[in-house]
Amino acid sequence: MELLDKLNWRYATKAMNGEKVPQEKVDHIIEAASLAPTSSGLQPFEILVVTNPEVKAKIRAIAWDQSVVTDCSHLLVFAAWDTYTAERINKMFDLTNELRGFTNEGWENYRQKLLNSYPQQDAETNFNHAARQAYIAFSQAIAAAAFEGVDSTPMEGFDATALDEILDLKEKGLRSCVLLPLGYRDTDTDWLVNLPKVRKSTEDLVTLVD
Amino acid sequence: MELLDKLNWRYATKAMNGEKVPQEKVDHIIEAASLAPTSSGLQPFEILVVTNPEVKAKIRAIAWDQSVVTDCSHLLVFAAWDTYTAERINKMFDLTNELRGFTNEGWENYRQKLLNSYPQQDAETNFNHAARQAYIAFSQAIAAAAFEGVDSTPMEGFDATALDEILDLKEKGLRSCVLLPLGYRDTDTDWLVNLPKVRKSTEDLVTLVD
Repeated sequence: MELLDKLNWRYATKAMNGEKVPQEKVDHIIEAASLAPTSSGLQPFEILVVTNPEVKAKIRAIAWDQSVVTDCSHLLVFAAWDTYTAERINKMFDLTNELRGFTNEGWENYRQKLLNSYPQQDAETNFNHAARQAYIAFSQAIAAAAFEGVDSTPMEGFDATALDEILDLKEKGLRSCVLLPLGYRDTDTDWLVNLPKVRKSTEDLVTLVD
Repeated sequence: MELLDKLNWRYATKAMNGEKVPQEKVDHIIEAASLAPTSSGLQPFEILVVTNPEVKAKIRAIAWDQSVVTDCSHLLVFAAWDTYTAERINKMFDLTNELRGFTNEGWENYRQKLLNSYPQQDAETNFNHAARQAYIAFSQAIAAAAFEGVDSTPMEGFDATALDEILDLKEKGLRSCVLLPLGYRDTDTDWLVNLPKVRKSTEDLVTLVD
């Protein structure tokens, strides 16, 4: 399958060469992230696309000085909702009704069910749930980048509180979760580029219940 | 891009027709999940592939009676490590050294860094981190299923504690995170099949920092 070939080609790029990724490819990668499924369709996250060199440099300083942060073309920051609120839930349900052109009793009951549960939960529980949804989108972006022949570096190694300050995320009700620099591998300096991919055996990964 | 066409074709299938998915396609979907990147390459999760009808029926009973649980061909259960232990960390680092055929000081220092942090953290923090990695794999499985023309239903709606008991996950040091029934849409009975996909606008999803 072609997708598997692309996923085998992909690796967590450790050095990038500064070359620009064409806007069309970036748009496709973000579209894939947007198409990812999320719990109740709420899409409880946003994506910040950082190309500004000064901002990248500030982020590199709070991300273990990893060179890909500044040598990438576009730095995607996946930031999840800091909690679920009635306003946020209603916005997605209203959008659904608007796009579908009708209301439905079952759907409205489901809205009430969410309104009666999520906003009453503590913010940390809600953020952790929203973050998982952001990871689904993040992963789809990784696959799409590979499909486009664009390198990427999945990155959790950064100070999230510091990044939230750099990007004013708290004011937006967001918390940064994970980064995805997009760009092109620097084959001369990347120590990982020629090393074989390591994965556990199928026996260690999969259990059949048949 | 072909992948986007497939991701647009995909939807959270609400009714399946019981048709079997060929083993080769299931293998490809699991391979995509295995190829997904995870933090430090630890792959802190396992996948249970349930085809046994009695087990599926038990799971349906603790999953809001959703028909796809029994009408799917293969039910994938993504279960994350309940915590990070020295044994689990060492196993992946040892496997890496074995597969690559050499040891490296930087890599061994990194192993020590993880051994000095993860096992000392509380299990819930570690599980939440491991679960996010499971979601990356889960998402890649969803994309691969779409690429293979296989329908799937991303499902968080189940009693995780009850599922852990049904599948004896606690004994394995695992906790169930998320389900992915694989099969084929029943176009006659699925209420969602013909409804348009709803996604927030690019303005609501993306912020440029340029």
